Amino acid sequence: MAELVGNVLVGQSGGPTAVINASVAGIIAEALNHECVEEIYGALNGVLGILNEDLIDLAAESQQQIRALKHTPGAALGTCRYKLKKQSDFERVLEVFKAHNIRYFFYIGGNDSQDTADKISKLAQQQNYDLRVIGVPKTIDNDLPITDHTPGYGSVVKYLVTSLRELACDNEAMGQGDLVSIVEVMGRSAGWIAAGAALAKRRDHPHDPPHLIYLPEVPFDQAKCLEDIKRVLKREKFCQIVVAEGLIDADGNYVAADAAQDAFGHAQLGGAGEFLKELVETNLPGVKARVAKPGIVQRAASHAASKTDVDEAFLAGQAAVKAAIEEAESDKMVTLVRGDTDHYSVETGLAPLSEIANGVKKLPREWINEDGTSMNFQFVRYAQPLIQGEVSVPHENGVPVYARLDKVRIDKVLPAFVA
Amino acid sequence: MAELVGNVLVGQSGGPTAVINASVAGIIAEALNHECVEEIYGALNGVLGILNEDLIDLAAESQQQIRALKHTPGAALGTCRYKLKKQSDFERVLEVFKAHNIRYFFYIGGNDSQDTADKISKLAQQQNYDLRVIGVPKTIDNDLPITDHTPGYGSVVKYLVTSLRELACDNEAMGQGDLVSIVEVMGRSAGWIAAGAALAKRRDHPHDPPHLIYLPEVPFDQAKCLEDIKRVLKREKFCQIVVAEGLIDADGNYVAADAAQDAFGHAQLGGAGEFLKELVETNLPGVKARVAKPGIVQRAASHAASKTDVDEAFLAGQAAVKAAIEEAESDKMVTLVRGDTDHYSVETGLAPLSEIANGVKKLPREWINEDGTSMNFQFVRYAQPLIQGEVSVPHENGVPVYARLDKVRIDKVLPAFVA
Repeated sequence: MAELVGNVLVGQSGGPTAVINASVAGIIAEALNHECVEEIYGALNGVLGILNEDLIDLAAESQQQIRALKHTPGAALGTCRYKLKKQSDFERVLEVFKAHNIRYFFYIGGNDSQDTADKISKLAQQQNYDLRVIGVPKTIDNDLPITDHTPGYGSVVKYLVTSLRELACDNEAMGQGDLVSIVEVMGRSAGWIAAGAALAKRRDHPHDPPHLIYLPEVPFDQAKCLEDIKRVLKREKFCQIVVAEGLIDADGNYVAADAAQDAFGHAQLGGAGEFLKELVETNLPGVKARVAKPGIVQRAASHAASKTDVDEAFLAGQAAVKAAIEEAESDKMVTLVRGDTDHYSVETGLAPLSEIANGVKKLPREWINEDGTSMNFQFVRYAQPLIQGEVSVPHENGVPVYARLDKVRIDKVLPAFVA
Repeated sequence: MAELVGNVLVGQSGGPTAVINASVAGIIAEALNHECVEEIYGALNGVLGILNEDLIDLAAESQQQIRALKHTPGAALGTCRYKLKKQSDFERVLEVFKAHNIRYFFYIGGNDSQDTADKISKLAQQQNYDLRVIGVPKTIDNDLPITDHTPGYGSVVKYLVTSLRELACDNEAMGQGDLVSIVEVMGRSAGWIAAGAALAKRRDHPHDPPHLIYLPEVPFDQAKCLEDIKRVLKREKFCQIVVAEGLIDADGNYVAADAAQDAFGHAQLGGAGEFLKELVETNLPGVKARVAKPGIVQRAASHAASKTDVDEAFLAGQAAVKAAIEEAESDKMVTLVRGDTDHYSVETGLAPLSEIANGVKKLPREWINEDGTSMNFQFVRYAQPLIQGEVSVPHENGVPVYARLDKVRIDKVLPAFVA
């Protein structure tokens, strides 16, 4: 096959994770191995940076900084939730690519980002512009189809189970009064993250905390919830609950929509965790409820990341570059493919961007126990390998040190973008 | 001096910290060095365990478990918030001590616990029962008098600054829209913990997050707060705020009392963080606010504990035993005494329990900048040494492993306690 010589462009999109920067590091490390790559650019804030021609020279960054990306949370290039809509937007993207001889475009993100990458790729084909587009999976939500799991998921779960086990030590120590300890975790439409909390239980200790997990997949029933809690309190003296922010009732409505308004015009604050607290304290006299809501902290907690997750995010970045250059692939996303044996292993594969963009992977109902508030061994077998291994983050003055890119700008050559 | 031969009793009281168990480990390690110590007992759930004669044999625990206490959160012996009131309660305590030949009592806790220890000590003196009582300081609130700081404080601050720096990476990456990122931290009456957030800033980077710190020491003014936020958003595009749960207004009322009721009878949920979120979203159109509330997780986060703090908690436990046995001291609490030189060092001292019980150490107003929302170099010089050094926690199946005591019960010899 003819070698395609030109520049690489990397972009990050959607909500950050603890490991999205590890994929950038993987892309850069692999791109440097190939003579056909002339320059390695980064787009600031995803497609927004492309539209505005805000590009930086990633090859100019120091090796220490690129190495530090492997353990740096956030999104070092900046990210965005901007959705390209108009045909003229897509044409502008190609214009920028042509102006900077971008021949390899790697976009790290979830469904929406892969959809964007797909459309850019298709337009390039229409215009006979030789461009190879490979998506790199990223989302804490773990809801991309085809790939076994997504980089970012293992780390958010590892952080949460670490916190949950620590919280359980504290809750148990206070064990004289009835205490309900609620942790609200991310997950608007799928319970993958909340389900992961089950990994905080020791093997063969089904009564370990968390005692109750409330998932968006199981319609929420207040009366049953109160019975669940009473049963646990009787047995344990405290009850640790994990609740997904996107809890829904039998009618499919959010139980506690953040910033929704109640009948009196008050903002309904605090979300699902505070909702459960109120439910408990109103209905179970003498029971005290406490809420923790790690919020965005949970997806940024690189200091407690899963080494497996970091390594796979890096691998996915490398695989994207190899696929584009060595196999002349385009219009695909890298997938993680789990080996068949009992011993966990992972290889990378490729799937068409269009299939990723339009699919969603749901938490299988058969992995949730019949009680609706705990996960079975099938889920544990699936998720446990994803949180294995710890990372070591450098500290300075007692605080973690994360990468800060120099962001050397590439000169703009086009007229300013007009939205 | 005459050697006092008998048994040691250790108790833990009040809210757990990441390092309260390290003090237990220090007490046991030192007690084993002294021939005059016959048995080492633990009281389950503090004074409650003494009243109920719920004592365990700490010498029967494996060495691995005792070693693991150094990095285990919660309170391995259990804790309580029970306050001894009646004279008969105190007499029951002494009865239990006599029945089990307790000659050394070490109580790990804050003001209230030291008050309890003081009263037990005084009653023993009245009854001519030879007992040595030494308190060991413990509280994340850092509000005990005389001691330079309290074990537990450094670790909660280290955990929070770790989370804040990670959160800042995430917030900055999203930097296209105006985002206010609020973290509510513990601290009902003093802002020591919230103030500690200032350590997340790099040296000589005053504009680093957190941009605004709201303390109980500075009366909260809504209009000024909104101006503060607008100023930061203009400069940074995002604004990271740390707010103490016990924020008060100019009239001395809690701005957002947890579970307080508003005029419509609704529980006012979510506390100070959600209050700020509503303030922002109501008054600054187009600005989005997100709240994180680590809750109890913050005081249990042993995986991100300060090594300095762990070591000092252990040291305080050791020092308590040495004081009681080698110096025949009683009715004192161990204090941490900072060295005079620029290079941080700490020694232990002793202070009368009565002075600890009745005092409170306030965050000095002169350590807060004139703007009321940031800390000056004096605070940083004070607090920075307390978060130095990282700990390594063992993991199994990707989750931290914490000590679980066997809790071998001591036979009860007295009639059951009647409250």
